Amino acid sequence: MKLNELASRLNLELRGNGETEIFTPAPVEAAGPGTIIFVAAPKYAAALKSKVSAAITTRELAAQATCATLISKNPYADFARVLETFFPPYRPAPGIDPSAKIAPDAKIGENASIGAYVVIGSGVTIGRDAIVHPQVTIYPGVTIGDRFICHSHASIREGTTIGNRVTILNHAVIGADGFGYVEADGGLVKIPQVGSVVIEDEVEIGANTTVDRAMIGVTILHRGVKTDDQVHIGHNCEIGEYSRFSAFAGVSGSVQVGKWTLWGGQTGSADHVKIGDRAMIGAQAGVHNDIEANAVVLGSPAVDARKARRYMAVLPRLPELIRRLRAVERRVGIEGDE
Amino acid sequence: MKLNELASRLNLELRGNGETEIFTPAPVEAAGPGTIIFVAAPKYAAALKSKVSAAITTRELAAQATCATLISKNPYADFARVLETFFPPYRPAPGIDPSAKIAPDAKIGENASIGAYVVIGSGVTIGRDAIVHPQVTIYPGVTIGDRFICHSHASIREGTTIGNRVTILNHAVIGADGFGYVEADGGLVKIPQVGSVVIEDEVEIGANTTVDRAMIGVTILHRGVKTDDQVHIGHNCEIGEYSRFSAFAGVSGSVQVGKWTLWGGQTGSADHVKIGDRAMIGAQAGVHNDIEANAVVLGSPAVDARKARRYMAVLPRLPELIRRLRAVERRVGIEGDE
Amino acid sequence: MKLNELASRLNLELRGNGETEIFTPAPVEAAGPGTIIFVAAPKYAAALKSKVSAAITTRELAAQATCATLISKNPYADFARVLETFFPPYRPAPGIDPSAKIAPDAKIGENASIGAYVVIGSGVTIGRDAIVHPQVTIYPGVTIGDRFICHSHASIREGTTIGNRVTILNHAVIGADGFGYVEADGGLVKIPQVGSVVIEDEVEIGANTTVDRAMIGVTILHRGVKTDDQVHIGHNCEIGEYSRFSAFAGVSGSVQVGKWTLWGGQTGSADHVKIGDRAMIGAQAGVHNDIEANAVVLGSPAVDARKARRYMAVLPRLPELIRRLRAVERRVGIEGDE
Repeated sequence: MKLNELASRLNLELRGNGETEIFTPAPVEAAGPGTIIFVAAPKYAAALKSKVSAAITTRELAAQATCATLISKNPYADFARVLETFFPPYRPAPGIDPSAKIAPDAKIGENASIGAYVVIGSGVTIGRDAIVHPQVTIYPGVTIGDRFICHSHASIREGTTIGNRVTILNHAVIGADGFGYVEADGGLVKIPQVGSVVIEDEVEIGANTTVDRAMIGVTILHRGVKTDDQVHIGHNCEIGEYSRFSAFAGVSGSVQVGKWTLWGGQTGSADHVKIGDRAMIGAQAGVHNDIEANAVVLGSPAVDARKARRYMAVLPRLPELIRRLRAVERRVGIEGDE
Repeated sequence: MKLNELASRLNLELRGNGETEIFTPAPVEAAGPGTIIFVAAPKYAAALKSKVSAAITTRELAAQATCATLISKNPYADFARVLETFFPPYRPAPGIDPSAKIAPDAKIGENASIGAYVVIGSGVTIGRDAIVHPQVTIYPGVTIGDRFICHSHASIREGTTIGNRVTILNHAVIGADGFGYVEADGGLVKIPQVGSVVIEDEVEIGANTTVDRAMIGVTILHRGVKTDDQVHIGHNCEIGEYSRFSAFAGVSGSVQVGKWTLWGGQTGSADHVKIGDRAMIGAQAGVHNDIEANAVVLGSPAVDARKARRYMAVLPRLPELIRRLRAVERRVGIEGDE
Repeated sequence: MKLNELASRLNLELRGNGETEIFTPAPVEAAGPGTIIFVAAPKYAAALKSKVSAAITTRELAAQATCATLISKNPYADFARVLETFFPPYRPAPGIDPSAKIAPDAKIGENASIGAYVVIGSGVTIGRDAIVHPQVTIYPGVTIGDRFICHSHASIREGTTIGNRVTILNHAVIGADGFGYVEADGGLVKIPQVGSVVIEDEVEIGANTTVDRAMIGVTILHRGVKTDDQVHIGHNCEIGEYSRFSAFAGVSGSVQVGKWTLWGGQTGSADHVKIGDRAMIGAQAGVHNDIEANAVVLGSPAVDARKARRYMAVLPRLPELIRRLRAVERRVGIEGDE
């Protein structure tokens, strides 16, 4: 594709030779002739003077470039559009596979693609332009908006409500029973999980992720929440909009999570805590108590990240500290415990 | 439903106006007119004097109530029954979907509901009143008791034995190969996993949980074991009755777990350790050694929880301790390392 | 089976009575009459003088044995062959189930067994002797070598390349989208994940494991990589040959992992780090920085294991250290902070 065609498709200002042929977008490490890269930060600016054919970059950085540039306020976001232009995602043809089992009273919107062996239960409604890959099961009574994308083997349990432009990757389970038992008569009685799950617009759920239904009421993921693969959201949680969860993050029951929070891999939280807006929870951290808005925490139990980094740096020196303390004790005539 | 009807269904003593209309059970935070709540502990007793219509509570706490009460020895367990009364769980109609592939020699008990695209292998036997949701695969040679509930996409591998009243949530895998390899000839040779899995009565397995088959012999989950979603039980483990595992708990191979243990989220144990009865393993703890009965442990490596909480509270002060130690060293004329 | 028959099948030197009848291989704890065990290390040598019928052991250890022995350079690996001899794994009959939906242009090699409700997309090629269990979905454009084994409900996404003798256990997802978003216009824009996954020969993937496709380029698992259940490999990772990952190990994006590394349960790594060959990462460790070849690390953040073990042993003594420090401060006339 010629660069001027790309510029016009993306509606970006072009500087340099529009006749330049672009063969593929590339990460900055693979910059070279025929590629287009993006440069959003000064530390990668050297690439703008390399043999790369073109770069999407800011007006400021473009001043340094020897390659052709497309001027962008958000180079990474515009690079995402380049990727889509060069590599349109796999999309099965519209149509309902004859092997799909769709309940007679289910309503599927226009232009849907429903794959082989999909099972859609009674009372389900799905909006227009849905793509449901093979072997998905949608239990009865589920309501789903427009432009739904659901990959193979996902399970959506009874009564779940899903908004528009939601994507669910393979094997995710939405609405399985929350985990609750009470001791009684020498055994364990299950607390029925009679609530449901609400997933708002533009949420994306990773592969093998589980979002449990509420014990009573709803577990709710607000607009734009994104989970990586292998995430778990417990029953009765409320997850604020645009919060993101990396792999193996686990949120216990009844946790209130603010907007735009970031959860690292293998993070966890105790039940019933509140996490403020834009809080960042570092990888493997364990949140035991409420966290304020904009807090950055690390460690298990999680504390302010600057504090945590300082004590973590000291940990390997602990044996040395004991020796030094013992030396001081001897010097001042205190009998240590050793 | 009128309160006296509810009392009679649950066989509980009623105090107050039996004509009170109950519209829904509710958590204590949502107590209000028309709702019934449960109050098991004095700290929630204030709700008994709120505008709630009724409460299930103990004889002692009922004395303080201004609302109608149902007297219970175990208010939470009786509340579970209320939930079931108001919200009977989704149960597909009995019958075998014509698309289910059931081996000719498999035996399915009376009153079963077998969903679309279920695959049941040769030699499988399932007891009465089974509910098998769509797209479950049961490999050959599996034996299952009565009142089995199995949600969509669960896989039950060859030779597994399952007792009565067992529930398996979506996407759980029972009996996949344990993880074992040995170096040989410059590569890795797989140790065949030729054992199987035994799951006793009343076990419940969460969504996306994996229970591996034994290398040789059996991996066994005794009566009443409960796992949350995303749990992993390694090969050759023996899990004592009524033990509970929260999300992302991982038990390595050949671990002996006692009865009534509690595993927090993201806990793990080394292989071959023994965990005593009623031990509690706090969230994110890593068990490296045997644990005595009734022990409560925390941390990685896990130690007694009181000890762990004390040292965890001190961790953020470590940099300060170093400064103080350095000051003391200077005072007594010791040259520190810094 | 008579011991001399077993010796001849395994091509191992026999010492003792070849007429001994062997009923089953057994772990050393279950050694007894009629069983064959393996003994690779002197600490289990006592079993060689027990009532066990036979043992596979080294030439050196065999000198102490009172039971019959098979002499082996690698007793554990030869024991693996004994297990296979006594317990041949379940293998469905060759043939393609009529319910399998195979695209007209897909190519399936000779002698395949394709189970019920398998879905194989357009342009897929699979080599000879494949075993694909029920309800697997293989998206379009996937290339797979010979002797492929794939268990129920696995999903293999579009464009994945898989070598020879690869095994994928139940519910694994190969090639789901990597996790990448960029803030734009007050929301989050998904970075299209347009790369793919390459899995080389002899890789084995555990149940419920996820291997994400690259953002651009490939995520690659080199020859002989083995993952336990519930592992996650992020986008654009390169995993060196014969590396092994225990349950819940999570590798973030763009991590370069060397050969023969070992990852304990619940380990994690930050993105873009490099892990040297034969590095060992202890259970629950969190790798924040590059790791050298042959390093053994523990803790979060991970440090050299010997250092980590020393400081971990000291952690529970921290409160005591503070008291001792305070005592010293008093002795030398320093006002502490407490």
